Amino acid sequence: MNGARALLDTLVGSGIDVCFANPGTSEMHFVAALDDVPAMRSVLTLFEGVATGAADGYARIAGRPAAVLLHLGPGLANGLANLHNAMRARVPVLVVVGDHATYHKQFDAPLESDIDALAHSVSGWVRRTTDVRNVGADAVDAITAATAAPGRIATLILPADVSWTDGAAFHAGETQKQPETPVAEATLRQIASMLGEGETTMLLLGGDATGEQGLTAASRIAAAAGVRVLCETFPARLARGAGRPAVDRLGYFAEAAAAQLDGVKRLILAGARAPVSFFAYPGKPSELVPPGCDVHMLAEPGQATAALTALADAVALDAVAEMAPRDRPPLPTGALTGQSIAAAVGALLPEDAIVVDESNTAGLALPTATAGAPPHDWLTLTGGAIGYGLPAAVGAAIAAPDRRVLCLQADGSAMYTPSALWTMAREQLDVTTVIYNNSAYDILRLELQRVGAQAAGPPGPRAEALLDLDPPRLDFVALASGMGVPAGRATTAEEFTAALAEALASQGPRLIDAVIPSMMG
Amino acid sequence: MNGARALLDTLVGSGIDVCFANPGTSEMHFVAALDDVPAMRSVLTLFEGVATGAADGYARIAGRPAAVLLHLGPGLANGLANLHNAMRARVPVLVVVGDHATYHKQFDAPLESDIDALAHSVSGWVRRTTDVRNVGADAVDAITAATAAPGRIATLILPADVSWTDGAAFHAGETQKQPETPVAEATLRQIASMLGEGETTMLLLGGDATGEQGLTAASRIAAAAGVRVLCETFPARLARGAGRPAVDRLGYFAEAAAAQLDGVKRLILAGARAPVSFFAYPGKPSELVPPGCDVHMLAEPGQATAALTALADAVALDAVAEMAPRDRPPLPTGALTGQSIAAAVGALLPEDAIVVDESNTAGLALPTATAGAPPHDWLTLTGGAIGYGLPAAVGAAIAAPDRRVLCLQADGSAMYTPSALWTMAREQLDVTTVIYNNSAYDILRLELQRVGAQAAGPPGPRAEALLDLDPPRLDFVALASGMGVPAGRATTAEEFTAALAEALASQGPRLIDAVIPSMMG
Repeated sequence: MNGARALLDTLVGSGIDVCFANPGTSEMHFVAALDDVPAMRSVLTLFEGVATGAADGYARIAGRPAAVLLHLGPGLANGLANLHNAMRARVPVLVVVGDHATYHKQFDAPLESDIDALAHSVSGWVRRTTDVRNVGADAVDAITAATAAPGRIATLILPADVSWTDGAAFHAGETQKQPETPVAEATLRQIASMLGEGETTMLLLGGDATGEQGLTAASRIAAAAGVRVLCETFPARLARGAGRPAVDRLGYFAEAAAAQLDGVKRLILAGARAPVSFFAYPGKPSELVPPGCDVHMLAEPGQATAALTALADAVALDAVAEMAPRDRPPLPTGALTGQSIAAAVGALLPEDAIVVDESNTAGLALPTATAGAPPHDWLTLTGGAIGYGLPAAVGAAIAAPDRRVLCLQADGSAMYTPSALWTMAREQLDVTTVIYNNSAYDILRLELQRVGAQAAGPPGPRAEALLDLDPPRLDFVALASGMGVPAGRATTAEEFTAALAEALASQGPRLIDAVIPSMMG
Repeated sequence: MNGARALLDTLVGSGIDVCFANPGTSEMHFVAALDDVPAMRSVLTLFEGVATGAADGYARIAGRPAAVLLHLGPGLANGLANLHNAMRARVPVLVVVGDHATYHKQFDAPLESDIDALAHSVSGWVRRTTDVRNVGADAVDAITAATAAPGRIATLILPADVSWTDGAAFHAGETQKQPETPVAEATLRQIASMLGEGETTMLLLGGDATGEQGLTAASRIAAAAGVRVLCETFPARLARGAGRPAVDRLGYFAEAAAAQLDGVKRLILAGARAPVSFFAYPGKPSELVPPGCDVHMLAEPGQATAALTALADAVALDAVAEMAPRDRPPLPTGALTGQSIAAAVGALLPEDAIVVDESNTAGLALPTATAGAPPHDWLTLTGGAIGYGLPAAVGAAIAAPDRRVLCLQADGSAMYTPSALWTMAREQLDVTTVIYNNSAYDILRLELQRVGAQAAGPPGPRAEALLDLDPPRLDFVALASGMGVPAGRATTAEEFTAALAEALASQGPRLIDAVIPSMMG
């Protein structure tokens, strides 16, 4: 069999059966082989950033990698921003980049570029297969690398001639599951003993610790030892809702985070990193750990759930986790704002929903309004590269066809990867997208105001125009309809709640263009 | 003044007065400074690939660089594909990438990434300014590097604290125009003498040689010495139309190129490279130079016009270039196809128009149908990274507000950078976009058929589905309307010619969704 067929067989044999694809000529043998490997589901995206963002969302929900098929260096380049987010989410992704035939590269044809350099910028593992006999083994190595805890991006570069040449074989390979590093006893004992000392202590959760098991262990520790618990600002997947332990996220702005961490003397990291501000600001510290606070590492990402469980069993054997009560806000009425959208979401969110949150500034009221909704998972923008929401919703819906996906999407960010809507329609995914249409980059208007506050005067009209999305005003009903997604506009809370209830009860994708005022006036 | 202000002043002082921008927090001081430097026109794009593609189109028409303002590594990543095209077009572009503050990088904040590696993959010059006192000088060096013939991408990485810190100064710098390398006399004499030897000779034009002056010189040489003339497959900017010398482009597929080059014994390169096939195919050569054909380099890109002119003066002093006659096809009637669109364009193209061509397979009939239209410039996809057409049309229109821009755009490629339409509406650019809506990646269907022809049988339905854009069918009227561009659909040649005539007579952008059959049935 040829390399393409062997790669597909090996992927499927190792449990990778979804491929988000945006192929070109150099991947045509991979495409041609798809009909011989029906277990592989290939999902077409119209832009590579949709494919990579979908793989991120898929991995966060499925807990295993999807494959992504990209075309040469420019195809990989278009997918890099969402691979950056996936890297920061520490999820497994298997990226297959088709390249020119090995003997063709010397000619510097128009699409020739430095694929390796681009791949290394986001990948924990990169290999170029140059001999067709190695395709199967290389694929197994790639999957092994991608799935070793806590998960990473593995990029396999597949030259066209390796893809089309015969002589490859299916590699039955057990992907080598690396044994989980046991939690160090000494660390556990040290931290357990610290917890009894009565210092003001904060447990900061990240990585795998934000699942239900990790949160429950952390809540037991909090109950027994009187420590406070936070999770990192942008968790990859946060288990939330009634009957689960509630945890606040560390604030995005340094001022908010500082208030949360004020007075903390010991910061214990479980799958999280010592907090730093997202951006630097003149005269403000980058590190958010308060002066005089010690930082202790309980566990790296990928081992945090096990470590928290062991710690809870050591210090909180009889403690009971505090679970969020079921508590939905009333359906909102009146003006449509970020607040009333949050209330509607809190009131209507279905059981076991997946919320993909790229609402940015407009979504500030969401955590409180949804804390008592039925159990759900919350996915956030882990790496700051906007344009993740719509694609991640595609991947999450494919990973969990029985669950409702609610994509809460800022307007400016939506325009980075809008064609994800087309894939939602093509695959008839049960995704409800809410566009927070405030016609501005509100987060940047806020940042500009902060700049103005230090400088001589307020920002001028030319600066403000660069952060304004109107004129022309984006019509997301038209955009969604143009890509096959039924859509409607809401301008009041009543219209929004009716549209949301209807969308959540419908088959296939829906979009609500929620027209709200800019936070910045 | 702070670094941001000094950078803006220095750019404007060196003649760079357009900035395509997609800023974020780390560029906020650059944004804030815009109101103090009114000579800089900042153009907002909703996605970085639009900003970089616009800079490419701008440079091809203006002959000088625009600045591009991008946000950190992911912003640069999103812009790389169109920078790849710009690199292959050998045009000058000045990329400014805002980075985290110098002291903030050590903390590996969520948006931290390897900007330098990404920048080097497309740039001929990269520098990171780490001291505010160097901002002005570094900007001048960047412009010098970008504009040295034949043009390249210069990337200046500007940390946020360098941008906001005082102590920078305007750099009056004459950007150091590098003297053009004089054409080597020995090369000229050698090639002049070869031309008299009667061997079958082909002059292949590329780079700057495809402007009116280079084409005229080549045509004189052809007339005097009996050589044939072709230009490279994807010229950055080809001067065409009635009253200018006509030149055929080298074919895209190796079979077509081989036929054009058949029997050639001497290939003389003027700003072009020895032709290679765009992709490799099993059992087919990558090099397109026929066996037994010698290749001679007359001039590198950037010096080809001067070299051709000198050669013409040496061997063809009295020869007259052969100019294309004015010859428009009749207005087409009946079915709307790639052929009838080509005829309509040939019949209606305005004087001095700029055609941005990303029509791909559907545009095969265009060169013949437009050869006798009034003089115009033709811009092509130089680097093969699709999604260049709409953005390049934005840049071309801003470079030449008095000229009509006609963007001939394949549907699949349009979906890589659709938000360029929004910028066309915001800036009210006189761009008419024609979408070749055949609901398929026709070029890939053709490639898949070629694969099938070598393999056991024809491709299966799962492979074909990956190359099909329907369902759902993309509605470009809705997409354009959603971004503020008036649009209409054409399904017959009559509807299309009426829509095109109206669009070309209108102020501001228009889009025609031209529904055509797939070439592949």
